[in-house]
Amino acid sequence: MRISEAVQRVLNNYGGERPGVKANLARLLMHGRTGGSGKLVILPVDQGFEHGPGRSFSVNPAAYDPHYHFELAIEAGLSALAAPLGLLTAGADRFAGALPLILKANNADNLSDDRDQAVTAGVRDALQLGCSAIGYTIYPGCDRQYEMFEEVREGIAEARDHGLAVVVWAYPRGRHLGKDDETALDVVAYGAQIAAQLGAHIIKVKPPSAVIAQAEARPAYEGMDLSGLATRVRHVMQAAFAGRRIVVFSGGPAKDVTALYDEIAAIRDGGGHGSIVGRNSFQRPFGEARDMLGRIIDIHLSQAGGQGP
Amino acid sequence: MRISEAVQRVLNNYGGERPGVKANLARLLMHGRTGGSGKLVILPVDQGFEHGPGRSFSVNPAAYDPHYHFELAIEAGLSALAAPLGLLTAGADRFAGALPLILKANNADNLSDDRDQAVTAGVRDALQLGCSAIGYTIYPGCDRQYEMFEEVREGIAEARDHGLAVVVWAYPRGRHLGKDDETALDVVAYGAQIAAQLGAHIIKVKPPSAVIAQAEARPAYEGMDLSGLATRVRHVMQAAFAGRRIVVFSGGPAKDVTALYDEIAAIRDGGGHGSIVGRNSFQRPFGEARDMLGRIIDIHLSQAGGQGP
Amino acid sequence: MRISEAVQRVLNNYGGERPGVKANLARLLMHGRTGGSGKLVILPVDQGFEHGPGRSFSVNPAAYDPHYHFELAIEAGLSALAAPLGLLTAGADRFAGALPLILKANNADNLSDDRDQAVTAGVRDALQLGCSAIGYTIYPGCDRQYEMFEEVREGIAEARDHGLAVVVWAYPRGRHLGKDDETALDVVAYGAQIAAQLGAHIIKVKPPSAVIAQAEARPAYEGMDLSGLATRVRHVMQAAFAGRRIVVFSGGPAKDVTALYDEIAAIRDGGGHGSIVGRNSFQRPFGEARDMLGRIIDIHLSQAGGQGP
Amino acid sequence: MRISEAVQRVLNNYGGERPGVKANLARLLMHGRTGGSGKLVILPVDQGFEHGPGRSFSVNPAAYDPHYHFELAIEAGLSALAAPLGLLTAGADRFAGALPLILKANNADNLSDDRDQAVTAGVRDALQLGCSAIGYTIYPGCDRQYEMFEEVREGIAEARDHGLAVVVWAYPRGRHLGKDDETALDVVAYGAQIAAQLGAHIIKVKPPSAVIAQAEARPAYEGMDLSGLATRVRHVMQAAFAGRRIVVFSGGPAKDVTALYDEIAAIRDGGGHGSIVGRNSFQRPFGEARDMLGRIIDIHLSQAGGQGP
Amino acid sequence: MRISEAVQRVLNNYGGERPGVKANLARLLMHGRTGGSGKLVILPVDQGFEHGPGRSFSVNPAAYDPHYHFELAIEAGLSALAAPLGLLTAGADRFAGALPLILKANNADNLSDDRDQAVTAGVRDALQLGCSAIGYTIYPGCDRQYEMFEEVREGIAEARDHGLAVVVWAYPRGRHLGKDDETALDVVAYGAQIAAQLGAHIIKVKPPSAVIAQAEARPAYEGMDLSGLATRVRHVMQAAFAGRRIVVFSGGPAKDVTALYDEIAAIRDGGGHGSIVGRNSFQRPFGEARDMLGRIIDIHLSQAGGQGP
Repeated sequence: MRISEAVQRVLNNYGGERPGVKANLARLLMHGRTGGSGKLVILPVDQGFEHGPGRSFSVNPAAYDPHYHFELAIEAGLSALAAPLGLLTAGADRFAGALPLILKANNADNLSDDRDQAVTAGVRDALQLGCSAIGYTIYPGCDRQYEMFEEVREGIAEARDHGLAVVVWAYPRGRHLGKDDETALDVVAYGAQIAAQLGAHIIKVKPPSAVIAQAEARPAYEGMDLSGLATRVRHVMQAAFAGRRIVVFSGGPAKDVTALYDEIAAIRDGGGHGSIVGRNSFQRPFGEARDMLGRIIDIHLSQAGGQGP
Repeated sequence: MRISEAVQRVLNNYGGERPGVKANLARLLMHGRTGGSGKLVILPVDQGFEHGPGRSFSVNPAAYDPHYHFELAIEAGLSALAAPLGLLTAGADRFAGALPLILKANNADNLSDDRDQAVTAGVRDALQLGCSAIGYTIYPGCDRQYEMFEEVREGIAEARDHGLAVVVWAYPRGRHLGKDDETALDVVAYGAQIAAQLGAHIIKVKPPSAVIAQAEARPAYEGMDLSGLATRVRHVMQAAFAGRRIVVFSGGPAKDVTALYDEIAAIRDGGGHGSIVGRNSFQRPFGEARDMLGRIIDIHLSQAGGQGP
Repeated sequence: MRISEAVQRVLNNYGGERPGVKANLARLLMHGRTGGSGKLVILPVDQGFEHGPGRSFSVNPAAYDPHYHFELAIEAGLSALAAPLGLLTAGADRFAGALPLILKANNADNLSDDRDQAVTAGVRDALQLGCSAIGYTIYPGCDRQYEMFEEVREGIAEARDHGLAVVVWAYPRGRHLGKDDETALDVVAYGAQIAAQLGAHIIKVKPPSAVIAQAEARPAYEGMDLSGLATRVRHVMQAAFAGRRIVVFSGGPAKDVTALYDEIAAIRDGGGHGSIVGRNSFQRPFGEARDMLGRIIDIHLSQAGGQGP
Repeated sequence: MRISEAVQRVLNNYGGERPGVKANLARLLMHGRTGGSGKLVILPVDQGFEHGPGRSFSVNPAAYDPHYHFELAIEAGLSALAAPLGLLTAGADRFAGALPLILKANNADNLSDDRDQAVTAGVRDALQLGCSAIGYTIYPGCDRQYEMFEEVREGIAEARDHGLAVVVWAYPRGRHLGKDDETALDVVAYGAQIAAQLGAHIIKVKPPSAVIAQAEARPAYEGMDLSGLATRVRHVMQAAFAGRRIVVFSGGPAKDVTALYDEIAAIRDGGGHGSIVGRNSFQRPFGEARDMLGRIIDIHLSQAGGQGP
Repeated sequence: MRISEAVQRVLNNYGGERPGVKANLARLLMHGRTGGSGKLVILPVDQGFEHGPGRSFSVNPAAYDPHYHFELAIEAGLSALAAPLGLLTAGADRFAGALPLILKANNADNLSDDRDQAVTAGVRDALQLGCSAIGYTIYPGCDRQYEMFEEVREGIAEARDHGLAVVVWAYPRGRHLGKDDETALDVVAYGAQIAAQLGAHIIKVKPPSAVIAQAEARPAYEGMDLSGLATRVRHVMQAAFAGRRIVVFSGGPAKDVTALYDEIAAIRDGGGHGSIVGRNSFQRPFGEARDMLGRIIDIHLSQAGGQGP
């Protein structure tokens, strides 16, 4: 297998990294229908843990079964499946080698309103499950943010030492950030920057809104036209070391698919590396989800700024 | 990517193994031109260490360069490249993700006549280099065989614990075995059995001759027609847990390619999982080697017992 | 290379320190345009983490790219680049050996008002990145100051044990200190003293104002003419073990360059060892920043008390 | 400081290595009079340990003092000083930062005829002394060769993990090798190959003679004209991964300086990366040694194949 | 207390060493009647272990009691008492703080003819006993010499890390050395060199004879007049890094006191740092031993080369 030029360009941003980490990044980037394009489309399924099973799966009860998500990711030609220890454990043997896996190694529930996450798995788990990467969530801005950074830093160091890539979900929140602030452009960009500084290879953020949340940050954005999502995505890419780190964007709140496809196109136009779409996919019937993910892949593969999907 | 049925059948023999090990076996079995067939064709390049650089590479000086072997394995569509730490280190970054790698973790030279190997690398090296497997040589029958088994056993345990597959090169030799005995059918089968008992996932042996070396073993083979290599290979497969372990065969001493192709066809007919061909390939000019390896792949992919290549 | 007499005089203050630490201090002191003079001019780039990427880099978008800062520090002939893990990781391979690096190993963001820092990297990271020093921020006076001191003390011990020099950013703040108090002469001097007591080899402080913040400290300064910055810098040097520890001063809040150059001249006249200038440099266009840093170097190299820049 | 193109080309052969290791290689390659040329000239002083102090230093008693060797290496503009723990410890503080140091971490004496070395220092010692590299001797072919390889392998792994470069002195010897065989071309090349396979960044060998020692290796060299040292050096470079690893050559047995300069020129013409000259230098009066080393540097810096020095 | 100039000159040879080690060296050098002179006279009592109690103490039964040796060392104004764990343990409480102690941490008996030593104590023992130094014996040349070097190296590293000084007893012996060779000048010098290379702060050797044992070493001593002990001691000091390491000499085989005093004077004249006299002292009645040690101290304190004691 030849690594494509597009993928090699991405890998070149990780000079000096252990070859095993680069090989795992290559595995993600060469797999599935986006394979070779430098883009990623990932299925994340941690909602059972994060939101509860009923809220997550009752609308499509087939999705209670971990195997369902492996099947969906494979059928749709995705780059990877990302999930907590238990879900991956339930399918890793049956689907061994069929697709890259990302072990989501810390998790929170919503039975309380703690803004924190428990470390629920480790590097050895990831290796035993055959994962290509390990993933951590951080909540920049929350009361326990620095403890989170320290936990994640240790996980990143150990992962790199064992040849695993690291994905960081950067979700700013906290007492000083209102609900709208969490997706404010300056805040999302800040989250991406922090993830990059901690050593993440792949950064996951929410699509940024046109809000600027921090008063001190406003002058920096003065005079910019932030009305287009593509422009805002481009700024997030700047915050991710001028695009030297892979950034993927969540699907954002549920919406009709047309709005979703427009959003994906804007992410593509802004230079984002791809999408990570959970509820918006697995809460639909299998075929519908597969087709929708296929469409998302098509959009990412189409020429940026072209006539779109 | 769907794991093919042929590969799934092979993987099913490893029930209960860590999913990461199975994922790495799947990686080897799904890669290259034999991908999906359940067969493996591997390029091993430890001869610089084992026989010396001049003897190994002077006939084709381009092969002094580690990158050459990565290129050859990729171009020929092989399943993997197997080599010691230094050779892999020299190319693992440049070719990250391009093909499965097997770290040959113990090595011997022939500047002395010790029948032993030095442990020259470990599981952490394999992970940092992005390898799918780690490999060890054992010399059943030699004076230090049990120390070797113990070293290899530790390596196997650590490898499995970190999701790596393990290849064991089983080369019986020692004071009680003459040169011809080393490839005797009973002895080769015995070596394969020991490798399987030590926990090897993939076993590498030499094509067995019709000799029966151990007097005590002779009655067991009485009345069998051992004249055909396919029959002898079939016996080695029996010794490898009735085929529950992957066995690959070396190309044996340099010979004309017709003889080599016949041998490969016999290995295929006997149920061998594939070939591991070093000197016979890289000591030829690049194009010739690539074509020869292509032919070997063709033979393994062709119907067993058919009219052959 | 001969260590210059000026540098040897500085190194002699670190008698009994591991030679590796002294070698790394020598590396910083012998590098760049100030090399050999006993002075240091350092580029610190942790603002993406500390203030957010937009506020830090939007005025000069080229600076979103980590490589930009390596290039700037090299082109301007600086002593070193100081930055968090992610930024250094993004350039350490490409610029290996080109300039001394300082790993800023704890970091804070301003998405919350915590007065604390997360430990985001360690000694092993610093060694693997090829750094000459590791850096920590302390906030003497803040609620978690003692936890910070304890974290930093552990980092210092491990760094020294591995031959790395340690830079401590001493920023007093806390419930008992108003905004103006943070740069009050007595408080800045106090911060420098605490850093020295914790074992810092290099101390970074802000230029002190003429304010005396602590009522109990006022009699100590009675009758002194604190109107000149050089005098105040001289007092900070006293607090840094009578000049036995290297002290570098930040550029302070953005100001016109004439004011900045005057400040640098006063630091020089007061016996400060150098400057550490971040936003004031990288928020300008490359050429302008390089020239400004060149001017700062010239001032530090010129005779103290001379006609200045 | 800009890394020169010649040095960058050498560093590019170490892709995927920790940036700290590359920075230390760069330090060696950018220092002294050969700095920037891609060549190295190193002073090794382990003879007090290996041959005894009287034999080593009585001809030039000033050389009993460890400081003498630091001074000689600095004055002559060499790339580095390599020595055991005690010698480096005696001067590392006084000469901190003045030149790159290589800690020779295993050592033998000649009070017995053991073909083995004691591990006399470790990575932490190297870091505390401010070394850029750690060095090990191997005796491929000796009875304890595999234990030596295993010790060295552990040292290499730990060194790389802490950002240190590794030099391996490859000296084949043993029951199966006569005195003349130890410098035979096939044997020297074999030693270089083994060092490269073990993960050495820099390999030190003796200039190879035209002897071919191993009967099995003879056919590989048939028909080659091995009468010129440059040709033989070129073959050793092939054995060092086609020149992807740095190889330096010892001065060989004492000889008149004209013969030595001719030898150095041949090493240069054959593509060797430099020289490591101990007794031949420090057994002469200081000025004479400095001038001779200067001439050696000149030869390495002059055009290969030109009219020589 | 002011450290005397003579002692400071000695301490300056240990630049870069942990200050705690230097403080312990200073403790030894400032204690007793030689305090401040740069000389040491030490009482070693390991003969009960090394030769058996009867042979060691029956001639002066009071010496069976460990307290006897503490009393003798104190009364005679010695620099330190050196002994194994048990002997020190028996008196360390009673005489806590009364004199510097050196824990002899490896020991051999003569119930067998093994040329090896058992590690019988460690750094923690030394600290708990209030010792200033820890001591190890090495047998350069013996079959297990490299294992001994490796054990001692670990002890030295740990001792330095805990601020303890290290004394190495260097006693070459082995299959290749006859009885006379063990005290041959070249061999004693070689032992001193090895101890220095291993990192010893204080080296203990036997007074060298005029024999040159190693054939290869003879040319190095050609033409030298080795008939005087002072000349030979001077050569041993060269071997100890040109006098940069403290070397003390044993009293040698029992002899009449006049011969002993002459020997001590020659050691003084040759630049030796002092004496370590066991059997020759404690096998005499207390008063006689005290007076003899007093005389030895007088000789070391008298002008070198003067009319002697």
